[in-house]
Amino acid sequence: MSNIRIELTANPKQKPQGPLHFGRYFTDHMFLMNYDKGEGWHDARIVPYGPFPLDPAAMCLHYGQEVFEGMKAYLTPDGTIQLFRPDENFKRLNCSNERICIPQVDEELCLEGLKKLIEIDKDWMPTEKETSLYIRPFIIATDAHLGVSPGEHYLFAVIVSPVAAYYETGLDPVKIYVEKSYTRAVKGGTGMAKTGGNYAASLIAQVEAYEEGFSQALWLDGVEKKYVEEVGTMNVFFVVDDEVITPALNGSILSGITRKSSIDILKSWGVKVTERRIAIDEIVEFHKQGRLKEMFGTGTAAVISPVGMLRYDGHDMPIGDGTTGALTQKLYDALTGIQWGTAEDTFGWTVPCCKL
Amino acid sequence: MSNIRIELTANPKQKPQGPLHFGRYFTDHMFLMNYDKGEGWHDARIVPYGPFPLDPAAMCLHYGQEVFEGMKAYLTPDGTIQLFRPDENFKRLNCSNERICIPQVDEELCLEGLKKLIEIDKDWMPTEKETSLYIRPFIIATDAHLGVSPGEHYLFAVIVSPVAAYYETGLDPVKIYVEKSYTRAVKGGTGMAKTGGNYAASLIAQVEAYEEGFSQALWLDGVEKKYVEEVGTMNVFFVVDDEVITPALNGSILSGITRKSSIDILKSWGVKVTERRIAIDEIVEFHKQGRLKEMFGTGTAAVISPVGMLRYDGHDMPIGDGTTGALTQKLYDALTGIQWGTAEDTFGWTVPCCKL
Ligand SMILES: Cc1ncc(COP(=O)(O)O)c(C=O)c1O
Ligand SMILES: Cc1ncc(COP(=O)(O)O)c(C=O)c1O
Repeated sequence: MSNIRIELTANPKQKPQGPLHFGRYFTDHMFLMNYDKGEGWHDARIVPYGPFPLDPAAMCLHYGQEVFEGMKAYLTPDGTIQLFRPDENFKRLNCSNERICIPQVDEELCLEGLKKLIEIDKDWMPTEKETSLYIRPFIIATDAHLGVSPGEHYLFAVIVSPVAAYYETGLDPVKIYVEKSYTRAVKGGTGMAKTGGNYAASLIAQVEAYEEGFSQALWLDGVEKKYVEEVGTMNVFFVVDDEVITPALNGSILSGITRKSSIDILKSWGVKVTERRIAIDEIVEFHKQGRLKEMFGTGTAAVISPVGMLRYDGHDMPIGDGTTGALTQKLYDALTGIQWGTAEDTFGWTVPCCKL
Repeated sequence: MSNIRIELTANPKQKPQGPLHFGRYFTDHMFLMNYDKGEGWHDARIVPYGPFPLDPAAMCLHYGQEVFEGMKAYLTPDGTIQLFRPDENFKRLNCSNERICIPQVDEELCLEGLKKLIEIDKDWMPTEKETSLYIRPFIIATDAHLGVSPGEHYLFAVIVSPVAAYYETGLDPVKIYVEKSYTRAVKGGTGMAKTGGNYAASLIAQVEAYEEGFSQALWLDGVEKKYVEEVGTMNVFFVVDDEVITPALNGSILSGITRKSSIDILKSWGVKVTERRIAIDEIVEFHKQGRLKEMFGTGTAAVISPVGMLRYDGHDMPIGDGTTGALTQKLYDALTGIQWGTAEDTFGWTVPCCKL
């Protein structure tokens, strides 16, 4: 057992009343750990949630040397709070670290700190349907130094937020807009890492999508602007005839844990799932031929999110009959069943954390 | 005249003794201003330099919504402290803002705040040859919100650092390494904006360049990996026969103010300067033919930096005789003459700030 220092708050906050808008409320504590060159990661601790006093020259504020993760804790019917594949998140965090030149973290220590934190703040767990605790581990470079080079000092933190559904429309199908001019990520870039710059690059397209009445933008590859990549915070899947297709991991899209889990669930049902390069023109063609039956996005925040309309090049493609498709719904039920503990976890994906 | 509130420090810091390593020391004060949705930019103020208390959920720490600028104040022989084309920097800041969905700033107010700040901290101006005050304006999104969307709250800041030359080798030629696998920026991305993510993406190549004994990496375009773009913090120029060539502004490279000024100076001498797409293979060919006479980088921090060796694909190309080329030296002298006020500023680029 490692040594995690614990300092409890003397001033617990009021819990949010009313709707849990995504990522706006934070629990009473946070897990922190520092890295200093020569010393490595040290001083793992759980302390009251509160501001970081960052030097104005802190590298993360200038050179974007920052990575993050997103996962959830779910309340099961028997009162257990459980995590979903948390090891995958910390593994991915270390992949992001590698690309962004941040030192590797001890994945087990991170998980231990996270579990302890959830236990301490467990009375923040919301209990309504489809709510959860959203967990945000992240690392920032804190050196007060304006030279462009990797930092020598980092802060690792985990903060926790009680949340309802990401899209305020719930499981209603969302409208997605294919972005043609802006680029989010490219081969050799940082697309496969969960790092700030990718999201900063994506904001402008999202604003334009909103203005047109769409929820998010669907990105095409940065080289040829021909192949489907992913949506702002979701991987995407298409149901074409009886086959499910999704863009292959090519280095510029994020390797989603919900994506990976969805593929496994679908395959366990005998559904044919193909990961491959998918041209947007193919999707248009499938739609014309009436073969594009369903489309959905996958992500920790958005869970399984049906897409009801895709716009490409001024051309609107309604998908299905405007309601959630049968396979999308079945996948949603299966995945959320495992996550919220109402179905058996035959894959061994859940990790119990504590009792409420 | 606008209202800039001023609060002077009661505890001036000790000035650095010894070598002024780049971007490690900061003056006693900083210029700040806040933006809140509905209210716009407000509360412009100069206050003692000190940490920002940032909420752990602050958007800039997660989604890289941050932009910056880099400029310098120079001490002239008559004791005037002057700026070099500061209007260009604030114009570029607003271009970066546009791409990253940050509200536009009032360029005149920024310049006024900056001048006032330099005046207040003028006794930090170093006086040795080639030293200056490096000025870093920047903006960060401060909303404590984990949804991916543009912030509604921002902090604008200017901090100031006394500096010597960026490369510790001074005007000695640097060695540059052409990066083949990683990508820094791509068409439709954020390359033309001065935003954190571009620099985070570049660190890994810089680390590899260092390990091979090179100072920086030269980036190729993200689409074809064929065309020369720029170096980590410099634009690049090649002297081929009697012509100077430099990559055209294509949306993925930064529009450097030193680049622009260098082009104007060279043209004023009757030198032929061409901005165009330049394939790295062409450079290799020019080198083979003995036509690549000089190469240099341009940037506020690095000034005019001669390149003495270029490595591409395992192939080393020594440039010139290992010393600074004649045109590079002449350009360096002309530009630094204007900046440090030892030559006449026939272009009208300098802006006096105060007397030391
Ligand atoms: C860009 C991007 N793609 C995909 C995903 C989905 O990944 P996961 O299923 O691991 O949450 C996310 C987010 O979480 C994301 O930010
Ligand atoms: C990526 C990049 N290119 C070029 C430059 C040179 O621009 P300027 O001459 O305006 O300083 C800089 C930096 O300052 C830079 O960061």
